[in-house]
Amino acid sequence: KINGERLWDSLMEMAKIGPGVAGGNNRQTLTDADAEGRAMFQKWCEDAGCTMGLDTMGNMFATRAGSDPDALPVYVGSHLDTQPTGGKYDGVLGVLAGLELVRTLNDLDIKTKHPIVVTNWTNEEGTRFAPAMLSSGVFAGLHDEDWAKERTDRDGKRFGDELKRIGWEGDEPVGERKMKAFFELHIEQGPILEAEGKDIGVVTHGQGLDWTEVTITGKDAHTGSTPMPMRRNAGLGMARVLEKVDEIALAHGPSAVGAVGALEVYPNSRNVIPGKAVFTVDFRSPDIDVLAKMVGEMKEAAKAICDEMELDVSFEKVGGFDPVEFDKGCVTAIRSAAERLGYSHQDVISGAGHDACWINRVAPTAMVMCPCVDGLSHNEAEEITMEWARAGADVLLHAVVETAGV
Amino acid sequence: KINGERLWDSLMEMAKIGPGVAGGNNRQTLTDADAEGRAMFQKWCEDAGCTMGLDTMGNMFATRAGSDPDALPVYVGSHLDTQPTGGKYDGVLGVLAGLELVRTLNDLDIKTKHPIVVTNWTNEEGTRFAPAMLSSGVFAGLHDEDWAKERTDRDGKRFGDELKRIGWEGDEPVGERKMKAFFELHIEQGPILEAEGKDIGVVTHGQGLDWTEVTITGKDAHTGSTPMPMRRNAGLGMARVLEKVDEIALAHGPSAVGAVGALEVYPNSRNVIPGKAVFTVDFRSPDIDVLAKMVGEMKEAAKAICDEMELDVSFEKVGGFDPVEFDKGCVTAIRSAAERLGYSHQDVISGAGHDACWINRVAPTAMVMCPCVDGLSHNEAEEITMEWARAGADVLLHAVVETAGV
Ligand SMILES: NC(=O)NCCC(=O)O
Ligand SMILES: NC(=O)NCCC(=O)O
Repeated sequence: KINGERLWDSLMEMAKIGPGVAGGNNRQTLTDADAEGRAMFQKWCEDAGCTMGLDTMGNMFATRAGSDPDALPVYVGSHLDTQPTGGKYDGVLGVLAGLELVRTLNDLDIKTKHPIVVTNWTNEEGTRFAPAMLSSGVFAGLHDEDWAKERTDRDGKRFGDELKRIGWEGDEPVGERKMKAFFELHIEQGPILEAEGKDIGVVTHGQGLDWTEVTITGKDAHTGSTPMPMRRNAGLGMARVLEKVDEIALAHGPSAVGAVGALEVYPNSRNVIPGKAVFTVDFRSPDIDVLAKMVGEMKEAAKAICDEMELDVSFEKVGGFDPVEFDKGCVTAIRSAAERLGYSHQDVISGAGHDACWINRVAPTAMVMCPCVDGLSHNEAEEITMEWARAGADVLLHAVVETAGV
Repeated sequence: KINGERLWDSLMEMAKIGPGVAGGNNRQTLTDADAEGRAMFQKWCEDAGCTMGLDTMGNMFATRAGSDPDALPVYVGSHLDTQPTGGKYDGVLGVLAGLELVRTLNDLDIKTKHPIVVTNWTNEEGTRFAPAMLSSGVFAGLHDEDWAKERTDRDGKRFGDELKRIGWEGDEPVGERKMKAFFELHIEQGPILEAEGKDIGVVTHGQGLDWTEVTITGKDAHTGSTPMPMRRNAGLGMARVLEKVDEIALAHGPSAVGAVGALEVYPNSRNVIPGKAVFTVDFRSPDIDVLAKMVGEMKEAAKAICDEMELDVSFEKVGGFDPVEFDKGCVTAIRSAAERLGYSHQDVISGAGHDACWINRVAPTAMVMCPCVDGLSHNEAEEITMEWARAGADVLLHAVVETAGV
């Protein structure tokens, strides 16, 4: 079993870097705080006897040698970047639980046959640079590396430039590593496990995501002296589409969800009717057909709304992934580890996207989840208990050691 | 008659300072561009023989001496600041037409009995610092100067600090000047004069304005893993209130208007359900009771919406003014000047707020308007013809000279 206190201490140490304004974290990808968090993680890994690899997307790979130099490594990990108002566990738990299992194996003087590699994937959150899970996506061959490096944030800064600036662009080509398996521990970010009183979620599937950026164009005009019938109010058009997004998601039943998290109007002045509105619609479903249907319905609705209001509308897909089914062998390894350790568990579908969803394309992959308080995540108040973290890391340890062999 | 070409040249020179991205201007108040525009205006005034006064709110007063040193000056002017995507004429025309009439009087060697003062009022637009017409409001005793200087922009910069920073805080106490009258020429910013084929609008009234900032608070949460019924989506609440603002304005008949120009959601991340939304509702009507009713209805609607969605809502009045009736004598001076000069004219109600609306509280005041193409303003494509500018400035000249005496 892992050392829960040590894992917790590391989580609390990491949370000191890039503090938020309400007890959580703002350690967005490729910021100075991200660089600081990476340096601390590297030091911890080296202290635990690992050697650090770094690829050209900034993905970090801390290797604990195995007894068979030819055996493919078993990978574990997640991400250290956070939302602007993010929690202390989303991503971080998966990385530091990987480190904790290395530390535990060191304590017990256990050498696995296959090496173990603890990974930190760059820009999982996608908040600064869309899409989410960008660098695991490049690793798995979903995105072209040059394209990924051209992604820009709201200030027009390029991913590639920012990665260089913070000093974490490596030399290793992306995606050349071969994996025996990949395991990711993550907090659930939803309410099911807590409600059901379960210690462990065995993640069998991940739901799909579509991010469509919608741009509505009207005409800037004076809010006071422009008669109502002459207005071409892009902000009002956006409001109507937001309402439709909600309606469409609700109409597609309990598992489909939809919302708009990011939006802007231009010029964003109190006495100017917005001439432009840009926002990203986030639709999700475990069913790929439902996902496509929702996106189609949203586009039709937006076109109808904008036609009637004499607004122009255009759409750009800025992110997304298909629903995922994880590797049956890896899923079984997790389920039997939970069983063996006596933790209560149930199968779950991940509501969020994870690096594991992309790595699943190139290696046998599965995920372990632990509950989080009130299902709350992407919020500084995100919380878990040390016991939940310990249970998740124990299951991760056992699944990894079983797969890596002793 | 004034020199239309010279007025036009000055307008085009000023438009070079703080250029926009689409042919207009971004010369927002208390920016470096604002400072540059002020310096050019000061130089032009001094070249025309005026002496410049500057008060502690940065209001500029260029005085052309009269023959009677004890006679109260006649004031003309408007503002040089613009919207972020503003036009070349909104405000600027009124200031530079004031300068042009001084130049014309110099050319004709006419000395008026009462001095003439050309004014540039600081922060008329209210886009960077709410409320609009801030410094004419302090001048007229509506706002406390200390309060005004504490207004902050989106980056948290204080009005008082920014005024100092650009070097345009004067020594003269605000509001001590006594005026015989104040005249402001402004583009209509609406479609009526052009549609009616009139050269001149004689402004008898100004409609009232209310700016209410609405803050809706929900809960940041993950867009993927938070079930729809658990969401407290402040962005969706905002969308519903935006729809109500439109409905309420339409229900109050052709003269009432309403829109939301400025809005933000937090943390504004694609995969975070907005936990907070802040936006400013702009309602206007020439009828003070209608104005109050619309604001009341909006608040009731917002409370009902937020109650149902388990959101919190709060309101803060961040700007506004009552409907205005301009001074009958000054209005007559404008109407008879238009008549005398043979310009077609009609009485109009100003849809926008103007510095004249505040100065009307402390001095006999009226406004002249000229048409603008398609009624378009607060847009970089704002346009007028040289003939329209000339007609407006001619009427201004005659009204001012009649009031100032020769
Ligand atoms: N786990 C997580 O929050 N990932 C970010 C990508 C997503 O929005 O699902
Ligand atoms: N004239 C003008 O655009 N003034 C700004 C204040 C307002 O919004 O009416």
